[in-house]
Amino acid sequence: MADDRFHVYDTTLRDGAQQEGLNLTVADKIAVARHLDGLGVGFIEGGWPGANPKDTEFFRRARTELDLKHAQLAAFGATRRAGVKAADDPLVAALRESGAPVVTLVAKSHDRHVELALRTTLQENLAMIRDTVSHLRAEGQRVFLDAEHFFDGYRSNPAYALEVLRTAAEAGADVIALCDTNGGMLPDELADIVHEAVQSGARLGIHCHDDTGCAVANTLAAVKAGATHVQGCANGYGERSGNANLFTVVANLQLKRGFDLVPPGALADMTRIAHAITEVTNVTPNSHAPYVGASAFAHKAGLHASAIKVDPNLYQHIDPAAVGNDMRMLVSDMAGRASVELKGRELGYDLTPDNTKALVERVKDLESRGFTFEAADASFELLLRDTLHGQRRRHFEVESWRVIVERTKGGELVSEATVKLHAKGERIVATGEGNGPVNALDKAVRLALEQLYPDLARLELVDYKVRILEGTHGTDAVTRVLITSSDDTSDWATVGVAENIIDASWQALEQAVTYGLLKAGHETD
Amino acid sequence: MADDRFHVYDTTLRDGAQQEGLNLTVADKIAVARHLDGLGVGFIEGGWPGANPKDTEFFRRARTELDLKHAQLAAFGATRRAGVKAADDPLVAALRESGAPVVTLVAKSHDRHVELALRTTLQENLAMIRDTVSHLRAEGQRVFLDAEHFFDGYRSNPAYALEVLRTAAEAGADVIALCDTNGGMLPDELADIVHEAVQSGARLGIHCHDDTGCAVANTLAAVKAGATHVQGCANGYGERSGNANLFTVVANLQLKRGFDLVPPGALADMTRIAHAITEVTNVTPNSHAPYVGASAFAHKAGLHASAIKVDPNLYQHIDPAAVGNDMRMLVSDMAGRASVELKGRELGYDLTPDNTKALVERVKDLESRGFTFEAADASFELLLRDTLHGQRRRHFEVESWRVIVERTKGGELVSEATVKLHAKGERIVATGEGNGPVNALDKAVRLALEQLYPDLARLELVDYKVRILEGTHGTDAVTRVLITSSDDTSDWATVGVAENIIDASWQALEQAVTYGLLKAGHETD
Repeated sequence: MADDRFHVYDTTLRDGAQQEGLNLTVADKIAVARHLDGLGVGFIEGGWPGANPKDTEFFRRARTELDLKHAQLAAFGATRRAGVKAADDPLVAALRESGAPVVTLVAKSHDRHVELALRTTLQENLAMIRDTVSHLRAEGQRVFLDAEHFFDGYRSNPAYALEVLRTAAEAGADVIALCDTNGGMLPDELADIVHEAVQSGARLGIHCHDDTGCAVANTLAAVKAGATHVQGCANGYGERSGNANLFTVVANLQLKRGFDLVPPGALADMTRIAHAITEVTNVTPNSHAPYVGASAFAHKAGLHASAIKVDPNLYQHIDPAAVGNDMRMLVSDMAGRASVELKGRELGYDLTPDNTKALVERVKDLESRGFTFEAADASFELLLRDTLHGQRRRHFEVESWRVIVERTKGGELVSEATVKLHAKGERIVATGEGNGPVNALDKAVRLALEQLYPDLARLELVDYKVRILEGTHGTDAVTRVLITSSDDTSDWATVGVAENIIDASWQALEQAVTYGLLKAGHETD
Repeated sequence: MADDRFHVYDTTLRDGAQQEGLNLTVADKIAVARHLDGLGVGFIEGGWPGANPKDTEFFRRARTELDLKHAQLAAFGATRRAGVKAADDPLVAALRESGAPVVTLVAKSHDRHVELALRTTLQENLAMIRDTVSHLRAEGQRVFLDAEHFFDGYRSNPAYALEVLRTAAEAGADVIALCDTNGGMLPDELADIVHEAVQSGARLGIHCHDDTGCAVANTLAAVKAGATHVQGCANGYGERSGNANLFTVVANLQLKRGFDLVPPGALADMTRIAHAITEVTNVTPNSHAPYVGASAFAHKAGLHASAIKVDPNLYQHIDPAAVGNDMRMLVSDMAGRASVELKGRELGYDLTPDNTKALVERVKDLESRGFTFEAADASFELLLRDTLHGQRRRHFEVESWRVIVERTKGGELVSEATVKLHAKGERIVATGEGNGPVNALDKAVRLALEQLYPDLARLELVDYKVRILEGTHGTDAVTRVLITSSDDTSDWATVGVAENIIDASWQALEQAVTYGLLKAGHETD
């Protein structure tokens, strides 16, 4: 578990999910939580159980599906409603019953918000805080408090804002995170206010938004003024201009201020993790992101080129390897020699230096065309086998395929696919119907091959992801399809890339079936 | 002309153009310069004449084509080469002959860079600065100096770094901009060093990059420490993680620190100008950009929506109108009545409480089935119209459609779509071919309708996004398609949801065309 003296607290799954266009399923949330745990954050705020059925479901599934190594789960929720007991408030009950070891309560600390938005008295708001914190503490949960609109609140009524901190701390809240909820602060004034708040004696955290382009700097300024708990989101996700980018905050503090925040080696995984999370969220990665962006250590200026040869550190603020990034990093540089070698060994293959070199080149070429192997292990293994065994060999050769999707005059929707292929010396034609074009293609190819390989019946297509990759100057957009397949024992993912979505799907499908056949012990001859 | 006491200095056309994937023609540069002048910046750095033929051409054409109202043009270049006189250096001559009233010279201020990259002595570097500055001054140009790698240089050899400042100032440089060239600084240490540099007596500027996510905060910290000249780029363009976003810097200083930087009314044009520049650069606008981003004042949380009705300033750090932006309510799964009502008003519809109730129910129902309206304004407006006008009415009725995608035996990939529809009393059958199924459908439906509505020719499908929702049974999952369409004047987005990806695409396409027809003034009868 992470050191408790300084908290790295992630709120991607709650506040980050407020980002326009970002919609996470429960499965997505679990996948993101695993990645964040891999980075070694201390706390993962999973959502608001009780207020949102999806979040309730997340906490339920997390108990059995999330085996966190570093992080603790936090459930977010509000203080009790005015005029009821915390013990009787069903929303407080949902927090209590979430199974999360930590509850983070949001509370008003701005007098006008109490009166205008909450529509209660300043005294009742304090009572709500006191009652809810002490109730959850008594029930055995650790409690943090998000002091909403704290900085504007401090400007409006400093005595009341500080009273909120003291009330929460006295009731047993371990940390009070000062929230710049509308993101309007600049670092100098924010630091002054944190400095005042520290005098309250409460342990303070900081929660910033990027509306002035200063979320990271505001977070650092608060830490310098005494905050020992930083909140933020993966890749700076969040409402409006986003939350403080937790990755940038952690890299700055660890690499430039000597903090020891994440486990040894984890920081060198940050670039990979940042990109893996974009695959789950389906948000185009920001190539300019500090530290982890594809362009973060890319140099274009001719002026620099010769000097970089002399000493790269003359032009880099850190060694990119410290965050798992690369100096000449294009999309393709994601796959360095070392990681390819490592991956090969992990899959049980012994790669010679020549094989590694050839494979790295193929991966780079394919990635520059939109492929990704980060999330498509099975495609990577097929590529590796092709590299080792020379000629690409498959269990079957495809002659042609066709898909028809039709909305008939009667309103019926029909999806039908026909594949013609050669396997074991036979020519097979099969037609499948499905609820969509990919489902129909999947059925057709399996109908064709099951005659020769009956164990294909165990194979199931369990997930299908599509991503339109923007073309850069002059190139058309391409479609990337990721397919996850499963048999009785495990899952594997394959990738296809093409202008045409059906063609991309077909590529991923063909590899999915090929990998399934290899996995079932059918070698190609 | 702008007040000389504080400089807003734009380097989009020079340092911003170092951004990966950003390529500006001379005409582009002139267009960007006009926009920047419209915002009222004080200086526009146009490029490096002499080093780059395109930049030489820019300065030549600027003399006749650029009629700047506020800004002065600056030519960027280096100090003379070692061992020659400034008067004899052809690159210095190009600066002299550029016609720019200001020359900004880049000079080394880091001892190791002088020795390793420039390969000359520390004394000769000072002579190069002295000679080049005084030569250009004598020839009648105003001279600024960019002290490259100043902060790392100060760490390495503070006495030498400060000697560079003094040398340049004594030779007649009006401003010495301290450059955090590799972008590695954090605000606290940067402010300390600027504070030391101010003691040199030279007038100081600041030039920051965003490699720590602190470019804006670093710029503000330098201003607080005494810098009176800020450099940056439109939209934060620039190499690696980009330069300081000049728009964010200006908005922060003017709206939050009382600086009077741009002419009256100009700040209210900032959002328009920021977007107009993205049209020229062809870089996708960052919707999360502080102040000017499309999401910068967008609210999603239902929790906030009701309070926003009470007082929008409770949830906004500034009035969005101050920068020409707009508050926007996102209709999302957290949408309550308040957000729907606000959204309707924003679109210019007057909703009765009954209409609002009916619309909220439809939105909730559709969202529970996977629709999203936060990113599909046009679909929301069609839904709203259907709610207001009762029965759903359209310009055309679809009888049937069919899509065929085929990989032939010869390896050719064919996508073909046929639509049969009724409009204006006619039955129309049309077939389109495309590079994918949706492209083919789009072509077919427009081919059919353009016969009756010729202005549909202006409509273009500009973006297509696909998301698979909750895929626990592979293609049984629901597919959500978002389509962005455009005519000459604006963009609109529509959404379709279905098990079948082609069917979902069709729904979004049908709405896109319907909305385009309404927008062109064609009412349904």
